[in-house]
Amino acid sequence: MGTKLFSVCGAILLAATAVHAQEDEVPALTPKQAQTVDRLIEKGLNDDRAYDILESLTTKIGPRLGGSEDEARARDWGVETLESLGFKNVRIETFEMAFWERVRESARIAAPFPQELKITALGNSVATPEGGLTAEIARFATLLDLQDAPMQGLEGKIVFVDEVMTRTQDGSGYGWAVAKRSGAANEAAKRGAAAALIRSAGTSRVRTPHTGNMNYADNVTPVPIAALSNPDADLLGSAVELADGSVSVTLDISVRTKASVQSGNVIGEIPGKTDEIILIGGHLDSWDLGTGAVDDGAGVAITAAAAKLIDDLPGRPTRTIRVIMWGAEEVGLIGARAYAAAHADELDRHVLASESDFGAGKVWQFRTRFSEGALPKAKVYQKALRRLGVGPGNNQANGGPDVIPLVQAGVPAFRLYQDGTDYFDLHHTMDDTLDKVNPEALRQNVAAWAATVYIASELEGDYR
Amino acid sequence: MGTKLFSVCGAILLAATAVHAQEDEVPALTPKQAQTVDRLIEKGLNDDRAYDILESLTTKIGPRLGGSEDEARARDWGVETLESLGFKNVRIETFEMAFWERVRESARIAAPFPQELKITALGNSVATPEGGLTAEIARFATLLDLQDAPMQGLEGKIVFVDEVMTRTQDGSGYGWAVAKRSGAANEAAKRGAAAALIRSAGTSRVRTPHTGNMNYADNVTPVPIAALSNPDADLLGSAVELADGSVSVTLDISVRTKASVQSGNVIGEIPGKTDEIILIGGHLDSWDLGTGAVDDGAGVAITAAAAKLIDDLPGRPTRTIRVIMWGAEEVGLIGARAYAAAHADELDRHVLASESDFGAGKVWQFRTRFSEGALPKAKVYQKALRRLGVGPGNNQANGGPDVIPLVQAGVPAFRLYQDGTDYFDLHHTMDDTLDKVNPEALRQNVAAWAATVYIASELEGDYR
Repeated sequence: MGTKLFSVCGAILLAATAVHAQEDEVPALTPKQAQTVDRLIEKGLNDDRAYDILESLTTKIGPRLGGSEDEARARDWGVETLESLGFKNVRIETFEMAFWERVRESARIAAPFPQELKITALGNSVATPEGGLTAEIARFATLLDLQDAPMQGLEGKIVFVDEVMTRTQDGSGYGWAVAKRSGAANEAAKRGAAAALIRSAGTSRVRTPHTGNMNYADNVTPVPIAALSNPDADLLGSAVELADGSVSVTLDISVRTKASVQSGNVIGEIPGKTDEIILIGGHLDSWDLGTGAVDDGAGVAITAAAAKLIDDLPGRPTRTIRVIMWGAEEVGLIGARAYAAAHADELDRHVLASESDFGAGKVWQFRTRFSEGALPKAKVYQKALRRLGVGPGNNQANGGPDVIPLVQAGVPAFRLYQDGTDYFDLHHTMDDTLDKVNPEALRQNVAAWAATVYIASELEGDYR
Repeated sequence: MGTKLFSVCGAILLAATAVHAQEDEVPALTPKQAQTVDRLIEKGLNDDRAYDILESLTTKIGPRLGGSEDEARARDWGVETLESLGFKNVRIETFEMAFWERVRESARIAAPFPQELKITALGNSVATPEGGLTAEIARFATLLDLQDAPMQGLEGKIVFVDEVMTRTQDGSGYGWAVAKRSGAANEAAKRGAAAALIRSAGTSRVRTPHTGNMNYADNVTPVPIAALSNPDADLLGSAVELADGSVSVTLDISVRTKASVQSGNVIGEIPGKTDEIILIGGHLDSWDLGTGAVDDGAGVAITAAAAKLIDDLPGRPTRTIRVIMWGAEEVGLIGARAYAAAHADELDRHVLASESDFGAGKVWQFRTRFSEGALPKAKVYQKALRRLGVGPGNNQANGGPDVIPLVQAGVPAFRLYQDGTDYFDLHHTMDDTLDKVNPEALRQNVAAWAATVYIASELEGDYR
C-alpha cells in the first residue's frame, strides 16, 4: 500500500514536472510584438483595401479562365496592383499549359415535354457531335448507384447522376459531391453511353449550373459531360417521374482547345531581413462564368492587403513575405506545380506557406501542418486569433490548393478556415460576383491574415 | 349645461341604436355552412392537389409566353386538367393578339473593361441594328433623374437607369420600380439616345435579369431596351466609377413579331343551383424565361384545387363557380379584356371576381371591393380566414390583374393577399421554377380560397 501511494505521488510529481517543462518551451511574442499584433488586427478590421482590390479585379478584368487572354490581362493587372501597393521584386513567372474553353452549350428536353434546361459543360469535356445529340435519359440517384450498374444497358443513352450536394460549414460536402464530376463521365463512357449529365456539385437553389474541371480515365473513349443547375435537375427528375415512357434530351456542347498556351504566376514581395520566406496568396484565374469574386479574387485581395499592412509597419519584417497570385489553379493546379518545380532548390527557405481560397466568409478556425516539435508554436497564433472569433483546429491543414505541391515537398503550412456555408451557392457559377462579398467579413479576413503572417515572420524557430 | 348634457346623452343613444341596427344587419353563415367552412379549411391544409397540378404544368409545359405555341399546348393541358378534375362546361374561348418574342439578346462592356453583362430584353422592345450597337453609357440613379435631364446631351448614347427596387411584403415596391420599364425607353428615345438599359425591376441578388412588358409612347421613335440583373447593374455602376473616361457597351437584341396570332382563356365550371357566378382563376401564360411556377402556375393550381374541394362537397353549390385560366396576361391583360368584352351581357350575374396572381407565399390579408352596404358581409369572410393567419384589409382591392376590366365594369371583387417578400426574387426571371414553391404555403392558399369561394357561393345577398 505504501508502495502504491509512492507510485501515485511519483506520477503526480512527474506530471507536474512535465507541465513545467512544456511551459518553459512554449514560445512567445515579445511584448512589443504582441502590441504590433493588436495594432495589425485593429487596422485590418478598419481597412477596406481588400475590397478596393477586389472591386478593381472583378470590374476591370472579370472572368479570367486559366490560359486565356483574360487571365493574361489579369496578370498585367496583378503586376500593376502589387507595384502600386509598394511590393518589391514584382514579376510574372510564366509556364506553358494546355487550354480548354467552352464555345457553346445548351440542352433541352426533346420529348415528351419539350423545354429548355440550363447547363454548363465541365472543364475538359469533349464536344457533342456537330448539331448536338439526342438520347434517352438513364437516371441514377447517386454516383455509387451508377458505379454499381451493370456494364450493359446504357449504350447510347445519356446518363444522369442526380446526386444532391450537402451544405456544410467546412466545405466537406463538396469533397464527396465532386467525385461525380469525373466519375459520371468515366462510368458512362465505360458502359457505352453517349453523354453524361450531373446535378451541379453546388448548393445554389437558383438556375446557375456549376462548372469545374474533370478528367477522363485513360481507358475510356471520352463522352461529353455537363452539369444541370439544381432547379433544372429537379425539373428533369420530375419529367422522368411524370413521363409515361422515356424522356429524351438534346445536348449541344462545343469547345475549343489549344495544345499549349502561356500562363503565369504573379509574384511580389515584402523583403525581410533574412532570405527565409513566408509564402501566401490566392489564385488569380477564375472560372469563366462569373467574375471570380469569391473564387478567388477574395484570396488575392485579402493576402495582398494583409501583407501591405505589415509593409506599413516601421522597419522590415524578419522574414520575406512572398505574395503569389497563382495562375491556372482551377484547371489543375498548373501554376502551383510550375512554382514548386521552378523553386525546388529554395523550398527549404520556405518557412510556412498558405493560400486563401475558400471565399470571403469570416475565418472561424486556424489549422496547422507543423512538425510535432513545432506544435507548441500554434498556441501563439491561436491566442492572437481568438479575439477575431477564430478557434483552434487540427494539425492536418493542407494549406490550400496551390500550396499542396509545396506541402508534399515538406514545406510546413497553416490555413485560416473560412465559413463556407454559402460558398457553394456561388463557387464556379455565374453568380460568383462582387455583390456577394460582405465587406465586414473581408476585413476580418485581412485582420486574421495580417496577424498570422506577422507572427510567422517574427516568431523565432521553424516548423519542420 | 342641461342642454349640453341632453345632447351628449342623445348622441350616446343614437350611437347605441346604430350599433344595434348594424348588428341586426350582419349576415351570417348557418351552423351547417360554418361547419363546412371548417371542413374545407382542414381539407385544404392537407391537400397536395395544387402542388401536383403545378408540378404537371411546370414540367409538361414549362415556359408559355402569351400567343406562343407553348401557350397553346398549355391550353390543351388546361382543358385536360379541368376535365380530369370533373369540371363542367370546359372550353377554350379564343381571341386574337399581336405577338412578340425574343430571339437573341446579349450585352458586354466594350471598353475600357471588356466583359459580359447578363441582360434580358423587355417585352415589346424593338431590336438593335443587325450586329448590335455600341455606345457610351449615360447613367442615371433614378427614372426621376432621367426625366429631369435636359433634352440635349444624350444623343446616340445608351441611357442606363440604375434605380434599385425596394423589397416589400405587399409588393408595393414593384409599383414604383416598374415605371422605369416604359419610362426609361421613352425618356431615352425623346432625347435621341440609341438604347436604354435598366437595373431589373426585381429584388433578386443573383444574375437573373427581370423581364416584363413595356410600351412605347406614340410620339417617339422606339429604341431597344433591356434589363440588367442586379449584380450586373452593380458591375456596370462600378465600371462607370472606376473608368477614367467613358464606358461603352455593346448591345445586341433580336426579336420576332407577328401581327396576329391566336390565344385563349381556358374556362371550366362547378355548376351551381343558380346562374349567378363566382369567378376565380389565375393566368395560364408566363414569361418565357422560367417555368412560370410562381407567376402564375401557382394561381392556376390554387384556384382549381380550391374549386375542386367545393365540388367534392355533397350537393351543388348555390352559385356557379367559374374557374378561368387566363391567356396572355403578361403581355397586356389581353385575355382579360377579351373575356370582359365577350361576356359583357352577363357581367351583372358575376357576383364576385378574384384572381390569384402574386406567387405562392402564404395569404396574410383579405381585401374587398364591395359596395358600402355590403361591407358587413366582409366580416363573415374575415372570421373564417382568421384561423389561417389572414387579417382584415381595406376595401380597395383590385381583385387581381385579369379582374381589373370586370371591376371597371362594376363587378365586386375580393383579393387574398399573399406574402410577397420574396416574390420579386423570382417573378419574370428564369428562376421562377417549381422548387421555389413551399408546399405548406400552397396548401394554406388552397384552404383560404376554398373557404372564401364557398362563402361567396352560399352567403345570401350580393355585393353591389
